[in-house]
Amino acid sequence: MLYLAKIYVTYKPSILDPQGEVIKAALHRLDFNTVEGVNQGKYFEIKLTAADEAAASELVKAFTTELLINHNTETYRFDLEEA
Amino acid sequence: MLYLAKIYVTYKPSILDPQGEVIKAALHRLDFNTVEGVNQGKYFEIKLTAADEAAASELVKAFTTELLINHNTETYRFDLEEA
Repeated sequence: MLYLAKIYVTYKPSILDPQGEVIKAALHRLDFNTVEGVNQGKYFEIKLTAADEAAASELVKAFTTELLINHNTETYRFDLEEA
Repeated sequence: MLYLAKIYVTYKPSILDPQGEVIKAALHRLDFNTVEGVNQGKYFEIKLTAADEAAASELVKAFTTELLINHNTETYRFDLEEA
């Protein structure tokens, strides 16, 4: 069965997000002053086949931890749906 | 009221995603051969205050189109929740 995994990678809370600070400052210069915090991360949409949702979930965890994130600074979550 | 906007920025379908192709090839080299397609994009979590959800939604659309995306190559969608 074909699945679509949507993976959201963000910095761990303890990690400073300089890019987020830069974007917040830029938004304030554009008068979007009610913006209080910005975190920028990576977003992946990955199509994969697997026997069932549990197998697909295990695959996503495996390749995300092996390739897509930096364990020292990043954390992730994902959604899985039939494609 | 404080809101959290989750913004997902991806390439338009017509645009080649070289980074996605590189990641797919790397996943295949790691024997994740059931991966069929990879798209990489940007993910933002932005906290903002607004009078209500409609106002927050308008703000998100305004600053996303003004600063966060490249109109020629990218498209976006977002979720909005009370923070």
